[in-house]
Amino acid sequence: MSTELYLRKRAEEVSGALPVFVSRLRGAQPRLAEAMTYTLAAGGKRLRPVLMGAAYEIFGGRARDILPAACALEMVHTYSLVHDDLPAMDDDDLRRGRPTCHKVYGEALAVLAGDALLTDSFTVLLSSRYPARVKPAFLLKAASVLAARAGARGMVSGQAADLEAEGFLDAKLTPARRRKGLGLLSYIHLHKTADLLTAAVEMGAALAGAPERDFRALSAFGRELGLCFQVADDILDVVGDKKKLGKSGSDARNRKLTYASLLGVEEARRRAEGLMSRSLARLAKVSGAEAPKKALAGIADFVYRREN
Amino acid sequence: MSTELYLRKRAEEVSGALPVFVSRLRGAQPRLAEAMTYTLAAGGKRLRPVLMGAAYEIFGGRARDILPAACALEMVHTYSLVHDDLPAMDDDDLRRGRPTCHKVYGEALAVLAGDALLTDSFTVLLSSRYPARVKPAFLLKAASVLAARAGARGMVSGQAADLEAEGFLDAKLTPARRRKGLGLLSYIHLHKTADLLTAAVEMGAALAGAPERDFRALSAFGRELGLCFQVADDILDVVGDKKKLGKSGSDARNRKLTYASLLGVEEARRRAEGLMSRSLARLAKVSGAEAPKKALAGIADFVYRREN
Repeated sequence: MSTELYLRKRAEEVSGALPVFVSRLRGAQPRLAEAMTYTLAAGGKRLRPVLMGAAYEIFGGRARDILPAACALEMVHTYSLVHDDLPAMDDDDLRRGRPTCHKVYGEALAVLAGDALLTDSFTVLLSSRYPARVKPAFLLKAASVLAARAGARGMVSGQAADLEAEGFLDAKLTPARRRKGLGLLSYIHLHKTADLLTAAVEMGAALAGAPERDFRALSAFGRELGLCFQVADDILDVVGDKKKLGKSGSDARNRKLTYASLLGVEEARRRAEGLMSRSLARLAKVSGAEAPKKALAGIADFVYRREN
Repeated sequence: MSTELYLRKRAEEVSGALPVFVSRLRGAQPRLAEAMTYTLAAGGKRLRPVLMGAAYEIFGGRARDILPAACALEMVHTYSLVHDDLPAMDDDDLRRGRPTCHKVYGEALAVLAGDALLTDSFTVLLSSRYPARVKPAFLLKAASVLAARAGARGMVSGQAADLEAEGFLDAKLTPARRRKGLGLLSYIHLHKTADLLTAAVEMGAALAGAPERDFRALSAFGRELGLCFQVADDILDVVGDKKKLGKSGSDARNRKLTYASLLGVEEARRRAEGLMSRSLARLAKVSGAEAPKKALAGIADFVYRREN
């Protein structure tokens, strides 16, 4: 099966399950539930849940076994997009070609929809049924990973650093300032993007009770893959077809700090390639089933080459 | 020991521990960590963590054993205040007599500080050490309770309903409209306030591995106590000394739906008294140690009579 087909089939399972989990949150205020579902239905590649399923399968079992955990991670990713799009943050009107949550439901309800998606990612993760091989201690570890990678040690700090970096390119780009920018940028990429992709494979490994050695190798794979993803995203933001991306290109509009803006597109491409190779080298060190490892390698290649 | 002294001593333990937990989130973006700490340091009665500790002690053990869980709940409560104060929501400049988070750190960072407090409440809850009597399954149940009570089945739906209720009092208050208002109001109180106070005692019971019967009785106690708390809050908002409360009285400014505005202060007082009595009746059904049950009864009385 090609990576694209694999991704599409796995993503469909996740997209089908997400509204079911929201509908199980009985008694939710109707407009709030609608705003949550609207945002989850916007689609996307579902890369994080698919990565989690593949990582889990390396150690036996089937991705379907941990579908609630995979959907929980996608809910966290989705909440981060809703809050990131808010007028006080990136102020984006479009996301994946559709009006953003706050454009449809207003700013206040968009804040709350994000809050609920984040909180109930833990409801879905912790209150769902799993096969007996997912022991309580494994589930606890997966939940700890999710909280740590998404919180102030992780994704939220990436967003906060991203805010601080606004206007960085307004001053003249001396060599010293370029170095400072690169340091800031790698912190942003590590936390804003790589942490949640790392959480995906770490959670898959944790839920399967993977040996510590393999957990660490997969974690390193996720980090390099996440960094590669973000560099590729920066390049796409400059050269990509805006329509294909379905975003309004606000990064470029605000002259945000990106590898492309700091180093140029060619050097950014070389970085992305290096990160992709390193992620594959990390993956090769993981013991376990070969087919899901091949799927992960295919995804790494896809992330590097993708056009949207 | 008087209830006020008990509350103060227990609250001090929580207030002392909260910044320690935030400081353990190593690598957090400095301004973000500062905004989180600023908001947590604003004080308050720490009612929820104190309730959790007392509920836990009914079934043996000491409140200090579960201090991380108690602090986690206070972090969730604090995040809800930060987001509730945002310009898009209640637009409050003051909270507990100090400038609100977004007044000090800006709106974008206030959104993120709230997000991080919420996410890392789970980091603190799930990644801390507990005595052996807190089994992994007990911790999982406590975390599920927290997520469910704080999410779209709970607190966030209360906030969303509160938004929808804005302007309710602009139209003429016919008897039918008053009934509708009362229905809406009880939904708001149940979710916006009672759910998190219920979570407090439920989490205490869950962490102690309390029998299901006692868990349910404590849960009902928490719900009645929470409803009483909110009715008392509505009354204070009308008759209380604004300075003592340290709030700018925006509820009255926006003519928000409250029991006092719908039924008058006297009828609201009768409701609060009824809720307090019912909470005590529920508490009496819980088996276990007497001293912590007496402390909980004292807190219920305090909530009913408090002046700030």
